[in-house]
Amino acid sequence: MGKPTFPDATLECIDQTLESAYSCFIEYSKKKANQRADFLRRIADNLEKHCNSIIETAEQETSLGLVRLEGECSRTIDQIRLFATLAEKEKWKEISTEAAEPNRTPIPKPEMYKANHPIGPVVVIGACNFPLAISVVGTDTTSALAVGCPVVVKSHPRHAQTCELLADLVNQAKRESNMPDGCFHLVHGESHGVSTALVSHPRTACVAFTGSLQGGKALYKVANARPSPIPFHAEMGSLNPVFGLPFALKEKGDKLISAYIDAVNLFAGQMCTKPGALIILEESFDEIFEQSLLDSVLKNESLPMLNSDVLQNYEKTSLDLAQSLEIIAQSEIQSNNTKGKIRIFKTMAKDFLTRPELKAEAFGPASIVIIAREFTEMLAVAKSMEGSLTASMLVSENDKPEASVLFPLLESKVGRILWNGFPPGVMPGIATHHGGPWPATTDSRYTSIGIQGYKRFIRPICKQGFSDLSGVS
Amino acid sequence: MGKPTFPDATLECIDQTLESAYSCFIEYSKKKANQRADFLRRIADNLEKHCNSIIETAEQETSLGLVRLEGECSRTIDQIRLFATLAEKEKWKEISTEAAEPNRTPIPKPEMYKANHPIGPVVVIGACNFPLAISVVGTDTTSALAVGCPVVVKSHPRHAQTCELLADLVNQAKRESNMPDGCFHLVHGESHGVSTALVSHPRTACVAFTGSLQGGKALYKVANARPSPIPFHAEMGSLNPVFGLPFALKEKGDKLISAYIDAVNLFAGQMCTKPGALIILEESFDEIFEQSLLDSVLKNESLPMLNSDVLQNYEKTSLDLAQSLEIIAQSEIQSNNTKGKIRIFKTMAKDFLTRPELKAEAFGPASIVIIAREFTEMLAVAKSMEGSLTASMLVSENDKPEASVLFPLLESKVGRILWNGFPPGVMPGIATHHGGPWPATTDSRYTSIGIQGYKRFIRPICKQGFSDLSGVS
Repeated sequence: MGKPTFPDATLECIDQTLESAYSCFIEYSKKKANQRADFLRRIADNLEKHCNSIIETAEQETSLGLVRLEGECSRTIDQIRLFATLAEKEKWKEISTEAAEPNRTPIPKPEMYKANHPIGPVVVIGACNFPLAISVVGTDTTSALAVGCPVVVKSHPRHAQTCELLADLVNQAKRESNMPDGCFHLVHGESHGVSTALVSHPRTACVAFTGSLQGGKALYKVANARPSPIPFHAEMGSLNPVFGLPFALKEKGDKLISAYIDAVNLFAGQMCTKPGALIILEESFDEIFEQSLLDSVLKNESLPMLNSDVLQNYEKTSLDLAQSLEIIAQSEIQSNNTKGKIRIFKTMAKDFLTRPELKAEAFGPASIVIIAREFTEMLAVAKSMEGSLTASMLVSENDKPEASVLFPLLESKVGRILWNGFPPGVMPGIATHHGGPWPATTDSRYTSIGIQGYKRFIRPICKQGFSDLSGVS
Repeated sequence: MGKPTFPDATLECIDQTLESAYSCFIEYSKKKANQRADFLRRIADNLEKHCNSIIETAEQETSLGLVRLEGECSRTIDQIRLFATLAEKEKWKEISTEAAEPNRTPIPKPEMYKANHPIGPVVVIGACNFPLAISVVGTDTTSALAVGCPVVVKSHPRHAQTCELLADLVNQAKRESNMPDGCFHLVHGESHGVSTALVSHPRTACVAFTGSLQGGKALYKVANARPSPIPFHAEMGSLNPVFGLPFALKEKGDKLISAYIDAVNLFAGQMCTKPGALIILEESFDEIFEQSLLDSVLKNESLPMLNSDVLQNYEKTSLDLAQSLEIIAQSEIQSNNTKGKIRIFKTMAKDFLTRPELKAEAFGPASIVIIAREFTEMLAVAKSMEGSLTASMLVSENDKPEASVLFPLLESKVGRILWNGFPPGVMPGIATHHGGPWPATTDSRYTSIGIQGYKRFIRPICKQGFSDLSGVS
C-alpha cells in the first residue's frame, strides 16, 4: 500500500474554506467560555488517547525519533489544556468600564465598557521542526480557538499525514462539543500558491507563520499588499549570538564550550534558538579553547536532519560558508548520511562586520566563532547584529564591567537574554518570550510560544451607552 | 514682519536627527521612572504657563477658534499629566517572574524575568485637525516618552509655528529635567519626502501617524518595504456609519436627526469619528424625516474649515458626490466663504452596495442617508462596510430583535459601538478605544487616543538566569 498523498487545495477549495470560517465567526465567538474550554479539552483528550498512532506517523514522516516526539506530544497536550483554562477563565477579555454620569456638564457621559474580542478567522502555517507543538494543534491554533477565532491550518507537506491525523482529532472534538463546522479546517499545500491564497483571502483576519526568513518575507509582502492589510505574524530566522567574556572562558571554558556545542547540536541544530555565533576575544582563542571545541564536537553524536530537503539545504548553506571561512571543528561521520554534521567555523570580527551574509541563520548544527581583537570590536559586532530571538552572555564576576556595557545593547536587539546559559532548554512559562526584532519575527511585540500567544488574535472593542441594553449584546 | 517659514528638513538633517535619537535610546530608556515623570510634568507645566501664546498662534494658523483651542489645550495638558503618572508608576512594564528550580530534572530551571521595554525611536506624524492634542505633545509623543522611547515629531505644515512653539516647551523641559538632547526632536516638512525619509530611516523603530487614508497607505508601504520593516500605526479614514432602526426613528426621530446633524457638523465635520452615513429603512424616510433633516441642517451654523486646503478638498469630494447623488439638505451660506457647507446626500441601499467609492470618508460636514427597502438590505449594507472607528445604533425597545442581529455584525467591523448615541462627544478614558479594522487604522489591536496608546511602543523582553547578576541590568 502506498503512502497517502494529499493534493494541494484548489483556489476554489481555499475560498470555500475561508468563507466557511468567516460565516461561523460570530457564532463561534459568542460560544460560552466553558463550551470553548470543553472543545479544547476534548482536543487534548483525543490527542492523549491517540498519541501512539500520531507519534508513529510523525516518526515515519520526520527523523525526530520516538523520545523527542513523545516529549513534544506531552508538551502539546499540556499546552492545549492551558489554553482551555484561558478560554474558561476569560481573563484575556481584560474588561474595563466607566460608569455613566448622566448629570455631567456640558453633556452627560454614557456608560463605557471595553473588552477584548477575537480578531476573526486566523490562518496558521506551521513549522517543519515541530510536527506537533508548532503544527495543527500547536500554540497558534489553540490560542486562537481559545479566544474565539475560527482557524484554518495549512498542513506541512513534509508531515502531511501527521497533520491529517491531528485534524481528525480536532474535527472529532468539534462535533462532540457541538462547535460550528467552520471553526476549524485543514488544507494541504505543497506549492507556495496555497499559502499565498490563504494569506491574501479577504476573509482572513490574521496569520501566524513559523518557518524560513525567505518564506516569511514573501508572505509578509502578500499580507501587506492586500486591499485590506492584516497583521501577519512570522517567526523566521534568528542568529542567537552568544557573547563569551574573557574571565568566564578562562575560569570555566571547558564547561561553557561543551554546553555551547550541545546547544548547537540540539536536535541537529534544527531549533529556532540555536546559537549561530559565539563571539569571543582574541585572548580567549588559544589552544585550550580550540582543543575544548574539538573535543566537544567529537563527543557529540551527529543527529539526523528532519528530512532530505532540510539536510540538502543545510549542506548547501554550511558548505557555502566553508568556501570563505575556516572550519575549526567538525563531526567525523560517514558521507551519504542523513545526519547533520556539526560544523564550527571561525572568522575575525573585522571580516564578519563587512560581510552581512554571515548574519543569516544556517538551519542545522553549524555555528561561527567570531574573534574580536578587543572589547570595542566585540561591541561593534553586537551593534551590527540584526534582531534575534535570543542572545546569551557568558560572564564571570570580573567580566561585569564589560557585561554592563554589552547588556543594554543586546537587550535592544532580542526578545530573551540568557545569563550564563544557552538557548533553548526552557519550557515556555508566563515569563518567557519567544519573539524579537526583525528578522527574528515580523513584530517583536508578540510571542508565538507560551500562554501570551493569544494576544495576536484579539482586539479591544468599546461599547458606549449600553446600560439600557438587554438581550442584544 | 513676515510670517516665519520653516524650510523642509534635508535628508542629512533627518539622518542626524534619527542618529541622535538612537544614540540616546539606551540612556533615555534607563532613566528612573520619576525622572521621566518629572520631564513630562515639566512639559505640561510649560504648556500651561504658555498656553495663551500657543493658542493665539494656533488660532492664527487654523480656523478652530478660541473656545475649541482652549478646550483642546486643557485636554492636552491633562493627558500629558496622565502619561507622567504612567511613567512614574511603571505599571506598563507588566513584570512577570518564574522562580529558579535548581534541582529540577532533567535540567535545572533558571530564574525567568519578563518586563516590557521601550521599542526604540518613535516617529510621530500628527493630524491637521488637532494642532495640540494630536500633535507635538499629543498622546503619540507623550505616551512614547513615558515608556522610554526617544521621539522625532514631524511638524504639520499647516500649523508649523504652533508646532515650533510646542517643541520649544519640550526642549526647555528636556534641559530642566536633564534628559538627553536626542530624546526629542522636531523636524519640519511640507513635502512627502520628509515623511518618507523619517519612516524609512533604519533607526526608526515605530511610527504613529494620523491623517488621510491616502497618506497613511503610502507611508505604510514605505514602512513595510524597509529592509527591516517596523510597526506603522496609522489612524486614517473612517465612515462611522449610524444605523437608525424604525421604531427609534418613529418614536424620537426629531431628536435623533437633530443629534445626527450636530455630530456631522461638529467642528465642521473635521473629526475622525464624524458619522459619514445614516442607514435607515424606506419606511422611515417620509416627509417628517425629510423636514426634520432640513430643519436641523438649517439651524446648524456653518463652521469654518481648518484651512483653505481642507476646504478645497471638501468642496471637491462633496461636489463629486453631488454629481451622482441627490442632496436632500444643505446649509444656506454665501459662496466665497471659508465655511464648510453641510451637505446631506441620499442614495438607495442597492446603489450604495454597487458603488465602493461611496464608502470613502469625506472630510467635512457631509453625510449620506442610505435607504434600505427592508431590514435584510440594511444588513447587506452593514456586511459590505469596511472597518470604521465607530458605528452607532439608534434603537427602541421594539427594535431589539433586529438590533441583536445587527449588533455582532457591526462589532466585527469597528473599534467602538454606540448605543443611541453619536460620536464623538466622549472624553478618552480607560474604557474607550480609538482604533478599528482597516482602513480606519493599520492595526485594530491598538489605540491612538487614551491611556492605552503607549502599548504601541513597548515590547516584552525576557531575562533568563539573571539571579546572580548585580550591577549589570
